Amino acid sequence: MKTDKLYYGAAYYDEYMPYDRIETDMTMMEKAGMNVIRIAESTWSTWEPQEGQYNFSHLHRMLDTARKHHISVIIGTPTYAIPSWLAKKADDILALNHGGQELYGHRQNMDITHPVYLSYAEKIIRRLMEEVKDEPHVIGFQLDNETKHYDTCSPRAQKMFVDALKKQYPDIRVFNHEFGLDYWSNRIDNWDDFPDIRGTINQSLAGEYAAFQRKLVTDFLAWQAAIVEEYKRPDQFITQNFDYEWHDYSYGLQPEVDQFEAVRSMTVAGCDIYHPGEDDLTGAEITVCGNIARGLLRDNYLVLETEAQGNPGWLPYPGQLRLQAYSHIANGSNSVMYWHWHSIHNAIESYWKGVLSHDLKENETYRDCCVIGNEWKRIGSHLKNLQKTNRIAVIADNRSLTGLRLFPTETNGEYSYNTILRWLCDTLFHMNIEYDMIPADETLFSKYDCILVPALYSASESTLTALNRYVEDGGSLIVTFKSGFSDEHLKIYADTQPHILHKALGIHYDQFTLPHHVSVSYHGIAGTAREWMELVSCDTARSLVHYGHRVWDRYSAVSVNQYGKGHAMYLATLFDEAVLIRLFSEFFDEIGLKEPQKIPVTASYPVVAKQGINEQGHSILYLLNYSHDFQHVYNSADDATELLSGKTICQNEEIQLDPWGVAILEY
Amino acid sequence: MKTDKLYYGAAYYDEYMPYDRIETDMTMMEKAGMNVIRIAESTWSTWEPQEGQYNFSHLHRMLDTARKHHISVIIGTPTYAIPSWLAKKADDILALNHGGQELYGHRQNMDITHPVYLSYAEKIIRRLMEEVKDEPHVIGFQLDNETKHYDTCSPRAQKMFVDALKKQYPDIRVFNHEFGLDYWSNRIDNWDDFPDIRGTINQSLAGEYAAFQRKLVTDFLAWQAAIVEEYKRPDQFITQNFDYEWHDYSYGLQPEVDQFEAVRSMTVAGCDIYHPGEDDLTGAEITVCGNIARGLLRDNYLVLETEAQGNPGWLPYPGQLRLQAYSHIANGSNSVMYWHWHSIHNAIESYWKGVLSHDLKENETYRDCCVIGNEWKRIGSHLKNLQKTNRIAVIADNRSLTGLRLFPTETNGEYSYNTILRWLCDTLFHMNIEYDMIPADETLFSKYDCILVPALYSASESTLTALNRYVEDGGSLIVTFKSGFSDEHLKIYADTQPHILHKALGIHYDQFTLPHHVSVSYHGIAGTAREWMELVSCDTARSLVHYGHRVWDRYSAVSVNQYGKGHAMYLATLFDEAVLIRLFSEFFDEIGLKEPQKIPVTASYPVVAKQGINEQGHSILYLLNYSHDFQHVYNSADDATELLSGKTICQNEEIQLDPWGVAILEY
Amino acid sequence: MKTDKLYYGAAYYDEYMPYDRIETDMTMMEKAGMNVIRIAESTWSTWEPQEGQYNFSHLHRMLDTARKHHISVIIGTPTYAIPSWLAKKADDILALNHGGQELYGHRQNMDITHPVYLSYAEKIIRRLMEEVKDEPHVIGFQLDNETKHYDTCSPRAQKMFVDALKKQYPDIRVFNHEFGLDYWSNRIDNWDDFPDIRGTINQSLAGEYAAFQRKLVTDFLAWQAAIVEEYKRPDQFITQNFDYEWHDYSYGLQPEVDQFEAVRSMTVAGCDIYHPGEDDLTGAEITVCGNIARGLLRDNYLVLETEAQGNPGWLPYPGQLRLQAYSHIANGSNSVMYWHWHSIHNAIESYWKGVLSHDLKENETYRDCCVIGNEWKRIGSHLKNLQKTNRIAVIADNRSLTGLRLFPTETNGEYSYNTILRWLCDTLFHMNIEYDMIPADETLFSKYDCILVPALYSASESTLTALNRYVEDGGSLIVTFKSGFSDEHLKIYADTQPHILHKALGIHYDQFTLPHHVSVSYHGIAGTAREWMELVSCDTARSLVHYGHRVWDRYSAVSVNQYGKGHAMYLATLFDEAVLIRLFSEFFDEIGLKEPQKIPVTASYPVVAKQGINEQGHSILYLLNYSHDFQHVYNSADDATELLSGKTICQNEEIQLDPWGVAILEY
Repeated sequence: MKTDKLYYGAAYYDEYMPYDRIETDMTMMEKAGMNVIRIAESTWSTWEPQEGQYNFSHLHRMLDTARKHHISVIIGTPTYAIPSWLAKKADDILALNHGGQELYGHRQNMDITHPVYLSYAEKIIRRLMEEVKDEPHVIGFQLDNETKHYDTCSPRAQKMFVDALKKQYPDIRVFNHEFGLDYWSNRIDNWDDFPDIRGTINQSLAGEYAAFQRKLVTDFLAWQAAIVEEYKRPDQFITQNFDYEWHDYSYGLQPEVDQFEAVRSMTVAGCDIYHPGEDDLTGAEITVCGNIARGLLRDNYLVLETEAQGNPGWLPYPGQLRLQAYSHIANGSNSVMYWHWHSIHNAIESYWKGVLSHDLKENETYRDCCVIGNEWKRIGSHLKNLQKTNRIAVIADNRSLTGLRLFPTETNGEYSYNTILRWLCDTLFHMNIEYDMIPADETLFSKYDCILVPALYSASESTLTALNRYVEDGGSLIVTFKSGFSDEHLKIYADTQPHILHKALGIHYDQFTLPHHVSVSYHGIAGTAREWMELVSCDTARSLVHYGHRVWDRYSAVSVNQYGKGHAMYLATLFDEAVLIRLFSEFFDEIGLKEPQKIPVTASYPVVAKQGINEQGHSILYLLNYSHDFQHVYNSADDATELLSGKTICQNEEIQLDPWGVAILEY
Repeated sequence: MKTDKLYYGAAYYDEYMPYDRIETDMTMMEKAGMNVIRIAESTWSTWEPQEGQYNFSHLHRMLDTARKHHISVIIGTPTYAIPSWLAKKADDILALNHGGQELYGHRQNMDITHPVYLSYAEKIIRRLMEEVKDEPHVIGFQLDNETKHYDTCSPRAQKMFVDALKKQYPDIRVFNHEFGLDYWSNRIDNWDDFPDIRGTINQSLAGEYAAFQRKLVTDFLAWQAAIVEEYKRPDQFITQNFDYEWHDYSYGLQPEVDQFEAVRSMTVAGCDIYHPGEDDLTGAEITVCGNIARGLLRDNYLVLETEAQGNPGWLPYPGQLRLQAYSHIANGSNSVMYWHWHSIHNAIESYWKGVLSHDLKENETYRDCCVIGNEWKRIGSHLKNLQKTNRIAVIADNRSLTGLRLFPTETNGEYSYNTILRWLCDTLFHMNIEYDMIPADETLFSKYDCILVPALYSASESTLTALNRYVEDGGSLIVTFKSGFSDEHLKIYADTQPHILHKALGIHYDQFTLPHHVSVSYHGIAGTAREWMELVSCDTARSLVHYGHRVWDRYSAVSVNQYGKGHAMYLATLFDEAVLIRLFSEFFDEIGLKEPQKIPVTASYPVVAKQGINEQGHSILYLLNYSHDFQHVYNSADDATELLSGKTICQNEEIQLDPWGVAILEY
Repeated sequence: MKTDKLYYGAAYYDEYMPYDRIETDMTMMEKAGMNVIRIAESTWSTWEPQEGQYNFSHLHRMLDTARKHHISVIIGTPTYAIPSWLAKKADDILALNHGGQELYGHRQNMDITHPVYLSYAEKIIRRLMEEVKDEPHVIGFQLDNETKHYDTCSPRAQKMFVDALKKQYPDIRVFNHEFGLDYWSNRIDNWDDFPDIRGTINQSLAGEYAAFQRKLVTDFLAWQAAIVEEYKRPDQFITQNFDYEWHDYSYGLQPEVDQFEAVRSMTVAGCDIYHPGEDDLTGAEITVCGNIARGLLRDNYLVLETEAQGNPGWLPYPGQLRLQAYSHIANGSNSVMYWHWHSIHNAIESYWKGVLSHDLKENETYRDCCVIGNEWKRIGSHLKNLQKTNRIAVIADNRSLTGLRLFPTETNGEYSYNTILRWLCDTLFHMNIEYDMIPADETLFSKYDCILVPALYSASESTLTALNRYVEDGGSLIVTFKSGFSDEHLKIYADTQPHILHKALGIHYDQFTLPHHVSVSYHGIAGTAREWMELVSCDTARSLVHYGHRVWDRYSAVSVNQYGKGHAMYLATLFDEAVLIRLFSEFFDEIGLKEPQKIPVTASYPVVAKQGINEQGHSILYLLNYSHDFQHVYNSADDATELLSGKTICQNEEIQLDPWGVAILEY
C-alpha cells in the first residue's frame, strides 16, 4: 500500500495513564513531528467493563485530542486479550494446550475456535467500529494483535482437525500409509479412535496439526477482516501486526502463522520488529524481518511496533534511534511506530519502556524522536513508498520450519530453521546485497536471477521439480543441507537425496552425521562445520570444499553444478560466514551476478547500503553506519543530493558518516 | 529476652531412634555440657497415631530423662507436618499452589487456612500442652516450625484475599486504577469476576497476594500463641524458629514471612542459621541472619537450629564448630542448638547429619561439642545476654524483596533483593562494622547515625519522606539503585526518580540499562558494574564515580549529597566490594563516623571483631578468626582478661589467634 | 544357550515400508550373509487394526520371503505398544506415573497391571502364536520388548504394593520402625491411610516401591513366557530384549528391571547395546553391557539390537561396524542383529538409521555388512558358543542403584551408581582384564578369585557377612565407598561403617564430606578425589593413599587389609583411572593374581584382547583395535592361526592390526 506520507508515531494508551495528561502527551507528540497513534488493541475490558456495558470515553478522548493535534489514528480490534468476566463465561474459553489448561491473566491464551469467545469478540468489534467509523482521521484498522493459535488443543479444535483429515483422506488406509502410522502400533483404523494429538510421537501428525493450527489463524483473521470490511471506508486500510520467531528479539519467520496466507485478507502488511540494541545493534533483524513483511504483499509495509527505549539493555545510544528509523524506511516501510509512547506503571511490561520513561517527561529518547519526526516532515515526500526491486530471493517456508522444530540440528533446537535462514540472509546483508523473501511458490521463481533455499525440509515434488526447472531455464540456485528431504507431511522421501533437487545440484548423498572437529576451508579462509553434515558425492557437480576430516574428507561440503542454462550451489553443512561470503562472491561472479545489486558507492559493512526508487522517480541510496566509528564512503556514481543536509555530493566525493549515522543520496 | 544462662544443646527425636538409647544420649549430652533439647515439633503422628488416639510415651521418656540429666526442654507444637490419617480427612487439606495440588509426604504443604487442619491442630496443641505444662524444666514453647504459607492458593485463601481487597477498596474503580488493571484487559469491575490469582501477569496483584500470604503466617502464629498462652507459666517463653531465604544455605531476609510482624506474638525471637562450611566458612551468614533475628524484638535471640556436621561439604574442620558457636553468642544469641543430636537412619534428611553420625558413637564433632559446652559452663555467665548497641542500621523490607522477585536484576533472579542487601551487609562485615537490621519503620530511623537502604523498591511516600527528613535532621543515608521506584502496590511512581528521595540524594535519573562492559573505579580501585545501571545526573550531589563506558560516561555511578544537616550517598549500580569499602570508608570519615564502631584492637578481616556489654557491665570483645592461618592482633586499649584462657592481655600486647580460633576480651 | 551358528541380521518391518520391496530387501540380506530377522514386536495395530479383526498378511509375507532366502525368524510379541483403539477401552489403561497421566502415542506407557490391557495382550499373543507356531524357520520368541514398569503408580498398582507390605509386616508398628516413618510425622498406623506413594519423602518407601515395580516386570514377563510355552516347539527359544540404563547410549545396569530375576523365565538372555561411535567408539559399553547379559544365565547370549548407522554422530567409520560385530562375539554373544534393516520414513525414530538409509539402496554400511556376514559364513563355526571363564567378578545390584538414585553423589545424579560401577569395569577393561558381572548372590562368590564391589549401598547383613567370609576363606575383595551403608530397605545401619564389612576391610569411618580440592597420589601418579569422600581410619588395614588436603590428610583414601586367608582393598573416594590402574596392578600382583587373565600376546589398550574356548576346544583370542592407528602386537605364545586371513602366526611374530581392525587367533 502506498501512503500519503511517512507515518511516525507510537501506540498510545490513555487507559493506562496514572493521571490525566492526554493534552500534554499529544502536544509533545506533535512537537516531535509524530503524526499517527495506534490505539484500542489491548483494552477490551475498558470498552466493555461488564458484559454488554460499554464505555468508550477513553476512546473518544484519544480520537478528539488526536484530531486536534493533527494525528492520524489506527484502531486495533481488542480481541487478543479478553476481559475477566468473559473468562468466566465458559470453563474452556481459555486454551487447553500442550502444557494443560491456561489460566486467566495473560493475553493471547484463549481458544480462538471457541464459539462463546467468537460471539463476544464479534460484538465488541462491531460496537467499536460503530464508534469510530465516521472519524475522518482514522486511517486504518489493525485486526487483533500478533495473532496466533496459542497452541489450542481443545477437543473442539482437535475434532476440527480430524474432520479435515477425514475429508482429505476418504480412505483411512491411505492416511495411515502417508503418515506412517504402522510405526509403534499407532494406526488409526477408525476415525473415532483418533487419540489426543498432544501425545503423538509421529512428527507427520504433529506437523500436520501445527499446519492446521496456523490455518486457524488465517481463518480467524479473515473472519475479523470481513466484519471490519462492513464498516470501513474505501480510504481506510486493514492490517495486522505480524511478528517473528522470538529469540529474546525478533529472529526470523514466525512459526505459528502462515503470514503469506493470512495477509490475503489485509490491505497492507504490518509488523513489529524488536532487535538488540546498544553494542549489539546491527540492522540484521530490521532487514530480515522487514523483508518478510515487504514480501507478504510484495509492497511497502508498515512497522506498527518497534522499540523506543525497549527492554533493559536496548537503550539507544545517541544516533541509534534515528539510524533505526531510517533503516526501516530504507527497507520499504512507510512507518515507524514505537511501542509505546509512555512506559507503563503496573504489570508485566513495566520494564519494556516507551518513548517516555515512567516520569512521563522529555528525555533523551524523546529528543531523538523530535529530530526524526521533524526531518520527515521536511524530506518525507522523497522517502515514502520507496520502490525496491531485487534480483535475489530467499525462500521462507513454514512447513520446513516445523520439520526442523521436530527434527532439529545438533544444538539449535527450535531455532534450527531460522538459524539456517539467518545464515543465508545475514551473509547477504553483510555483503550489502538486498533480497526479497518469498514463500515456496513456484509462480514467483522466474522473477529472480538467484534463489536461496535454506533447509527446504518439507517440499512437494511439484515445488522441487519447479526449482529444477528454474535452474534448467537459467536461474541460479543456492540450496542448503536438509532440503528436499521430506514431503508435505514430513514423510521422508524414499529415494536419492536431495529428492529431485539432486538432478539440478549434480550431487547425491545417502549418509549424514554430526560434524565434530570438521573444518572447511576455501581459498585460505578457514572455518568449522557445525550442526549437520551430509556426506555428499558429486555426480556432475564440482566440489568446491571438501570436509577437513581424516575419514569424511572424501565427501563434499560445498559444490556447484551447471544444469541446463543455470547454476546450482549446494551447502552440505553450516559453517562460518566468512567462508560463505567468499563462496557467494565467486558464485555471483561466475553466474554473471557479480554485483547483484549495483551500489553507487564504495561501501562495505558496517556501512549498509539500501536502495530504491522514490515517487519522483529518483534513485534513493541510504547509507547506514552500524558502528560506533566514523565511516567514509565515496560516491562512485553521478552527483547526488544528500537529503538530510541538502548538500550536493559530487562524483568521487567522500561522504563522512557519523557514528551510528545516516546519509541519504538522491540521484 | 534475657536468659539465666547460655543454652547449648540440640533437637532430639527419641521417636526416630533405631533402638533404645535415651539414657546413653542424655548422658553424652550432659558430659558435653549440653543443657537444653528441643523436642516434639515434628512428630504429630507419633503423639496421635490415629485420630483421637494419643500416645505420649516418647514425650515423657524424653522429659523424664532430660530432667534427670539437668537438661532443659523446649517443646515445639507439632503442626508443621500432618499425620497420614489427617491428610485423608479432606481432599484439599494439602495446599493447592502455583504448581498444582500437593501430595502427602512432605512436611509444610498443608493449607494453613483449612478449618479441618486448624481444628485438629488446635486439639493436638491443647493435648500436648496438657501433658507438659507442669514440667518444671520446660523452659519454653516453639510454635510450629519454620512456618510459611506454603504458597496456598486454595479457593478459600483466594476468597479471603478478595474479601480483604473489597474492604480496602470500596470503590472497585480505585482498585483498578491503583493496580493498573486496564493493562491487557485485566480489569475487574465485579468482585465476582476475580480470576484465579495464579494466572496473573500483574505484579501489583501478585505482590499483594504475596503480602496476603505472609499475613496468613502472622495470623496463624498469633492464633497458636494465643492457645499456648492459655497453658504456659509466666517463666516460660514462646518463640518461633524463623528462617531465611534459602540459597543452598541461609542467605537473607525470608520472603514468605513478615518476621517483624509475626514476632509480635512471641516472647523471644528464635531462628535457624545454616551456612557454608569448611573452606567456605566466613561468618557472613551468622552475622546477617543473626542481625535480623536480633532486630525482630531488638533484643537477644535464640539460635534454635544450626548445623553440627550438617550437609555433605559442611563438616567442621578442627576449631570451626567452636568458632561458629562463639560467633552466634558474640552476635547476641543466648543459645546454640544443633539440628540435631543424632543423624537419621531413614528418609530425606539422612545426609543432613547431626552431632552424632549414624553409628551414634562419639566422634570428632561430639568431642568439639564437649569443649564448647564445658567452656560455657565455666565462662557463660560473662557471655550471656550480651547487650549490643550499633550506630548503623540496614533496612530489610519484604515488599521490596517481592518487587525484585517479580522484576529481578539481570542475573540474580529471585535472589535479587537479598543479593543487594548482602552486598551492603557483607561490606560492613568485612569492614568490621557491626550494624542492626531494621524494617522500613520510620520511628526507628532516629536511633541511628547512618542508615543503609538496599533497593527499597516498594515504599510509601510516607516512608520516603521520612528518609528525607532523617537526612535533613542530620542523619547519613546510603541508598542503592531501585529504591523509591514504586509504591506499596508496586505501582511505579510517575515522576522524577528516585521518587521523593531524589531531593535528599541531590540526583535524578529517567533512564537505566544493563551494564555490559562498564567499569567503575575509585581512587585507583577498579571494578565492574553489574546487574543494573541507572543513568544518574547529579543536581546538587557530587559524583564520586562515573561509569567507565564510551557512551554512558557522562552519568554518575556513585554520588554524595549534603542535604539539610545530613549526607546521602547514592549507588546507581552494583559493583565490586573493594570499591565499596573504599567509598564507605571515606563516607564514614566525612560524616564524622570514621569509626562507626570503635574496636579496641587492630583487627581486620579475616579476623572479625564483635562487641557488647555483659551483665557485669564490662565490655566484651570477641575476636573471631575466619581463616586457616594464625592471626595476630594487638590490644590497643586497656588491659583486658582473655576469658577462655583466663590470661591478662596488657595494652599493646599481641594476641595470637589459632586457625579458626577465638579470643574473648573482657575490659 | 548354544546356537547352531552365529546369527547375523536385523529387525525388519515390512509394515513400515513406503512401497513393496520385500523381495529386494531379503535378496540384499541374503547377499550380505544375513541369516536372521526379528519381526512383529512393534506392530500390534497392524495385526489387529480394530478389536478382534486380525490381519497377518505382512507377517506371512515376511515369513514366506524369509524362508525362501534361508533367513531364520525371531518373533516378538507386540505388546509393548498398544493400538489406538485399545487406549480407548479404559480411561486408565495408560499409566499414571510420577509425572501424571500418560497420553496415547508413545510406546511403553501402559499400565502393565491393567486387566483390560492384559486380557487383550493375551489374545493377540495367542493369535500370533497360532499363526507362526508351525513355521520351521521361526527359531525363537522375544517376549514384549525392552519391558519396564513405565513407573506405573495407578491406584491398582499402589494397592498391590500395600497388600504386599501388609503381608510382609503383620505388625504395622514393625513396618513403621523399619521404614522410619515417625520422621516428619509420616507414620501409617492404619493401612487404609497409606498415602499416594508419589508424594513420599521417605526413600525407604520410595525404594521399596521401585523394587515392587521391578517385580511387576518380572511377573509380567513370566506371565508372557507361560503363554508362549504353551505353543512353542522344544527347539525354539524364549528371550527378552534386555536393555541398560540410558545415558544417551547404553550405560550400565538397568534400574527398572531385575534382570537377574526376570531372566529366569527365558531360554536365553537377549539384549540391545547402543554405544557411542566415530571418534568415541571404545568398546567399553559392548563389554560392560555384554558382561551383564552373559551373566544373567551365565551362558552365551544374543545381541538382538545394536546400531547400524544409528543416531546422527554414530555413523561407523570404515572398519568400525566389523570391529563392533566381532567385539560382541568375542564377548560371548552368538548374534549381532541391527536395529534395523531400513531407516524409517515417518515419526520419532526417523533419524535412528538402520543398515539402509531412507533411499533403501546399497550404501557404505550395507557393504560393511556384506563383509561381516560372509566372513561369518566362512569362519563362524570357530567362533560360535565361545566359552568364557573369568576369575574376577563385579557385583551389580539394583537395590543399591536405587539407593544412589535417591541419595546421589555430588554431581552424578541418577547415574551415580553406574558411574561407580563403570569406574571399576572400565578400569578392568582398559587393563585388558575380562570379568563376569554377577548379582549380590553369595552362592556365586566362591567361583571367583577376586570380587569387585561398587557402592553396595543397600545390602542385607547376610550378604555382608558372606563377603567377609569370602575374604576369610582366601578371596580377594575390592570395595568402594558407600558400601554396606544401609539395609535392604535403605535404613542406614546404626553402627560402625562400613557395616560388617569393616572387619574384612580393617577400617572404619564415621564422617564423610565432599572432596573439594583434594588430591590423591600413588607412586607418582596423581589424581583428584571426586564425588564423595569418607574419612577412613585404618584399624588393621594399611593405608596406601592418604587424602591430599591440609585438614583431611590424616584419613585414608585407599587401604588394603589382610583378613583370614584373603585380602581386601577399600576405595573411600572416586578418582582418576590412571591411579586406580596402578593400585589394581599392585593388588593383583600381591594377591598372586598378577595376570588375572593370561593374554598370550603383548597387547595393551587401545588393543583389547578377549578370549575363550571354542567348540573345537581351541583357545580363541580376539585382538580388537579401538583406534584410528595401526597397532602392532606380538604373539608371545605358540603358533596360532589367524582365522580371518587363514595365515599362521608364529611365536613372537608381529601381528599388524589395521585402524579399527580385528585379528582372531586360534591356538
